[in-house]
Order: sequence, then structure tokens, then C-alpha cells
Amino acid sequence: MRAAVMRDWQLRVDDLPDPTPGPGQVLTKVLACGICGSDLHLLVHGEESRKLSDELNEGRPADPMAPVMFDPAKDTVMGHEFCCEVIDLGPGCENLKVGDVIVSMPVAFDATGLHGIGFSNAYNGGYAELMVLNELMGIKVPSGLPVDMAALTEPLAVGVHAVAKSRIAGGDAAVVLGLGPVGLACIAELKMRGIGPIVAADFSPKRRALAEQLGADVVVDPRETPAIEAWRRIDGVRPLVIFEAVGVPGMIEQAMRMAPKDARILVVGACMQEDRIHPMLGIGRELNIQFALAYTPAEFGEALTAIADGKVDLSPWLTGKVGVDGVPQAFRDLGDPEQHAKILVVPGL
Amino acid sequence: MRAAVMRDWQLRVDDLPDPTPGPGQVLTKVLACGICGSDLHLLVHGEESRKLSDELNEGRPADPMAPVMFDPAKDTVMGHEFCCEVIDLGPGCENLKVGDVIVSMPVAFDATGLHGIGFSNAYNGGYAELMVLNELMGIKVPSGLPVDMAALTEPLAVGVHAVAKSRIAGGDAAVVLGLGPVGLACIAELKMRGIGPIVAADFSPKRRALAEQLGADVVVDPRETPAIEAWRRIDGVRPLVIFEAVGVPGMIEQAMRMAPKDARILVVGACMQEDRIHPMLGIGRELNIQFALAYTPAEFGEALTAIADGKVDLSPWLTGKVGVDGVPQAFRDLGDPEQHAKILVVPGL
Repeated sequence: MRAAVMRDWQLRVDDLPDPTPGPGQVLTKVLACGICGSDLHLLVHGEESRKLSDELNEGRPADPMAPVMFDPAKDTVMGHEFCCEVIDLGPGCENLKVGDVIVSMPVAFDATGLHGIGFSNAYNGGYAELMVLNELMGIKVPSGLPVDMAALTEPLAVGVHAVAKSRIAGGDAAVVLGLGPVGLACIAELKMRGIGPIVAADFSPKRRALAEQLGADVVVDPRETPAIEAWRRIDGVRPLVIFEAVGVPGMIEQAMRMAPKDARILVVGACMQEDRIHPMLGIGRELNIQFALAYTPAEFGEALTAIADGKVDLSPWLTGKVGVDGVPQAFRDLGDPEQHAKILVVPGL
Repeated sequence: MRAAVMRDWQLRVDDLPDPTPGPGQVLTKVLACGICGSDLHLLVHGEESRKLSDELNEGRPADPMAPVMFDPAKDTVMGHEFCCEVIDLGPGCENLKVGDVIVSMPVAFDATGLHGIGFSNAYNGGYAELMVLNELMGIKVPSGLPVDMAALTEPLAVGVHAVAKSRIAGGDAAVVLGLGPVGLACIAELKMRGIGPIVAADFSPKRRALAEQLGADVVVDPRETPAIEAWRRIDGVRPLVIFEAVGVPGMIEQAMRMAPKDARILVVGACMQEDRIHPMLGIGRELNIQFALAYTPAEFGEALTAIADGKVDLSPWLTGKVGVDGVPQAFRDLGDPEQHAKILVVPGL
């Protein structure tokens, strides 16, 4: 099969052997798979992140539930935001049938352990024509829901989880820093929960326009108007949650500096480098910093249901489609926030 | 009156004019006042902290509820852990009478605003013979409770608040890093709440012995046994809250490195310098960092009640007493954790 392959932290398109489903697994045809910013990041910063991660985890007991780490010298096919069609069943499958269109959390499991789909040498991700998924993880896409929208389940689930983890409640206000897919997913979920006002900040006019379409009440260019100023103008009194979805050094400190007393900061932007903060900012204002990663199976299902029920219209989010051979160029194009937000890989296109 | 005075970030003993109570205020005689580590810290790091604080708060709207800042060029008498006897009443006092023994949160107020007692040019703290307090803030010490114990209300309240702010619940476990008065107060409150196991870490054998007396289940010298290792040996499965009560750069990162998935870190040690963390530690483990400062009036009252009702025996905590003239030497002595934990200033001694 055709696949965009990462090897030695380089991306190339290649032909790989077709994968084979084991017991309890299904073989699927990829219908659409979103390109995630973390994949772009992994290519550029993966090697240093891996070293840092090894160093930070040194001496900790092994976690049997942690996904098996991929070997960067071997093939890894990324892509963890996929919608697929079942084309063959492994032994013992009982619930899915050939022709079913499904989404799945990007996790596979077998006797060797858990594997992060898209971050595994054993289970390729969706930048390929075929994938193997565990039947147990497959959720049938409600009929009538376009494949493109179903493929946005995973990135929306990140926002569903971040918002849940922030413990934001009715009557609270939100400031969202950074309007990449993660920040936009947070806005979509905040809006679905009826939270307001939502103030959103990003340098990019295109991203700010998307944030407005997804439900932000006020958008600002932080070079012109600090987000916290915009919040003070239209509210300034509600309990505030600041969502940090930029993920570069200095952003947590920025959020701490702008935070009013008792504010909560939900960090969902993954800064991979060392960062600096002034703890006295946290102490003086009794801030709370909650870090968030991924989502639960229930939240993944919730995201699919929200899209299928029309509670949220994510169509503005989609800005392009490429075939497998177009993945390397799409990675480059995504560097420009004016050009693209979410590109779908549609094998065969 | 005799007082230990801070001027230009230097401590000296001097004679000051007696203070006069205004409307709704009482004049009191200081019976005992604990020396707090933050006072030692203020003398050494106050100037740089003030500059940093001004810089960090630049551009923020003024908070009318924030205490009036003291001018370091003028006299400031520190001491915010006091027990006093009422010796005169200002106009309009109705609830207290001469002879009442009281404690009070270290906050005074008048038409000019709020003042942090012990951090104010207008209201001297307890390193002096006399103090003015607002009648409204005075809480009568239950009869039979020794003055020395009543003076520990304030530092215990810091622990009551930190533990409340951590949202720790029955069934959770605690690791306490740093066994100065703040760490010890956290242990006392954790024990009163029936939380266990409590693992406590400090370099000082004397402080570890105190922690055991106040209720720690296991104490460790972190140079020999990491606190998290000790917790894993005796528990390792309960939801964990790590109390960071050291307050020097690097401790938040240390807490993040040792933290298991979903752990909460309660930062009650006030690190005044810039600090470094790896956000990816927080992201990967979905950590929560809650900063805590001071206490509420209800928590202050709760601390007094716990001491008075004998729910906690803080007597091991007290290691020395000095008169006002002995304050500068006591500040020096408190630098050695083997020698002292809490020294009380008893004017006239």
C-alpha cells in the first residue's frame, strides 16, 4: 500500500506491505485522515523530545499501560485522526462487518501491549491506504454523516477533554490563547456548553475568523489588544479559565501574568522545551494550572455525537485535501496559518 | 514602646511611639508572637522581590482590596502570628473589653484601606510591646488555652488553607516536601482530616522528628530515599497530592518529576525567584498545580478551634522564646533547622 512514512525523523512516500488484522481486529480502508500539528512537531522536534522524555522519566517504574514506544530508525506511519471503511475481518470479529464506516480512538492493542496508532512501528496511522484497528475500539459513524466531518472526531475530542478537565462551569468565562486546531476545538466545545463570553487570541486573521465561526464572542490580535484587556472590557467579573493552546515556551508565564486572582489555566498546548515561570505570580493570585492530554473513550464518543447531531458545524475548519503522495507538501503548507487550518489526507485522491 | 524595626531592609531594635487605636479598634499588649520564615525571607530578598513584583504587576488594574504596600524606607515592624491582651478600647468598641486575650488575622482596616499587619508602615506587627487591632477581627482565645499555643493559630491556618485548597479527600495520600513551619502545619491538618499515608521529606533530622510527632507516617531524608519511593513502598496506589513547602527554585519541577499520573501538586512554598519547569511533564501526566496563599477568616477560626479543642498538639513545634531585644539574634538562630523550628517573641522577657 501507499503510505507517507517517517524514518529517522524524515518523511517520505513509499510502498509498504499491506497490514494484516489479527484476532479481534479489522482491516480498513482509510477514507479520510486529518493532519495534526503534533505530527508536524514530531518531525521537527521528535528527536530532542525523545531524549528529553527519556531523561525526565529516568528511574521511574515502567507503566504497563503506556503505549509501546516506536523506534525512529524503523518505519512509522503517522495519522491519528481517521475515518475508515471496514474491508476485512480478522478471526473472532462479531460486531463490525465489511462496509461499515467507523472511527476509532488511535489506540491498538494485542498481546504485546498497547500501541499508539500513528506513533507505532506495529500499527500504521491514517497517512496510508489501509489500517488495522481493534474491533472493540471501532465506533460506527451515524449514517448521513459525511466522512470528512467524522474524521474531525479526534481533534474535537481533544477540546471536549480539555474543557472537561478545566472544570469550567456555567457562569464562568473563557480566554483561549492560540487558535490552531486545539484552540479551535476548545472554542467549539465551550460554545456547545453555553460558556460565555469566549475571548480568543491569535496573530492570524484567518484563524481568528475561524474562531468567530466556531463561537468565539470576541477575537483579538494580541499584538494590538491583550486578550485579558478584551475580556475586562466585555466582562471582567466572572470566574475565568484561560486555555493555553499555543504550546511554546513563555506562554504559561504569559497566562499567569494576565490571570486575575483565583483564575484557572488549562494548558493544552504541548510545549516540549524547558520553560520559565515566576511561582510568585501563582502564589499571589492562588492560580490553578491544569495540564490536559488526549481524551477518554466517553469524550471521544461525545465528540462524534456532537458532530453527527449537528450541535457543532466544523466545516469551516476544513481547508484542504490531499492524497497520500501529497502529504509531505501538505506538511509544508500547514506552516502558514493564513493558508490552512485542517488538511485531510484522502488516499486515492 | 520597644520594637524590632525593619528600615531599608535592615532589622534593628528601637523605641517607637506607642500606637493609638482609632474608631472600632483596640490597643493590645503583645503576649506572644511567632517568628515566621517569610519575615526572614523578606529581610534578605524583600528588595528584589518588590522590584520583581512591581514588574510582574505592571499594567494591571489596581486592586482596591489589596493591602497598602509598605515603604521600605520607613519603619515596618514585622510579626503576624500574635496573641494579645486588650488594654484599651478605641471609640465605638462594643464586643471586646480590657483584659480579653485575643488572636486576629493580621489584617487591619481603616478609611485608607486594608493593611497587612507586620507588612505595613501604619500598623505594626507583633515584634513590639503594643499593637492596634480592629475589634471586628479579634477572636477571644478560649479560656484555658495557653497563650503560646494560641499564637500558633496563624501558622496552623496556613496549613488548614493549603490542605483545603488541595481538595485532598479521604482515600487520598500525601507527600509533603519541606518541613519548615508551613510543611509541618500541612501535616498537622492532614492528620486531623484523617488523610494517610503522609510521607514527609526534609534534610533535617530535627524537622523530620517534628513531622513524626505531628502525624507523618513515614519521614525520609531525600538524599537517601526519594519521598516518592517511600510512598510507593507503603502505598503507591492512592490518588496523590504532593505539598511543595520548600519554596526554592527547582522544587516545582522536582514535584512534577516525581508525580504519578493525575497527581496534584499544592504549592505553598513561596519561591520568589524565576523558576524552570518542563511543561511536557505536566502534559504527559495531566498534573494539576494549585498555588495557595494565606487563609480565609473561617480557616483562621478553624485553626484556633482545633488547637483549643486539643485536636492537635503543636507544643513540639515551639523551640524557643525571646524578648523584643532578642529578635535579631533569633532571626539568625532560625537559620539552623537543627536548632529551632518556631521561636516566640514574648515582649518583656
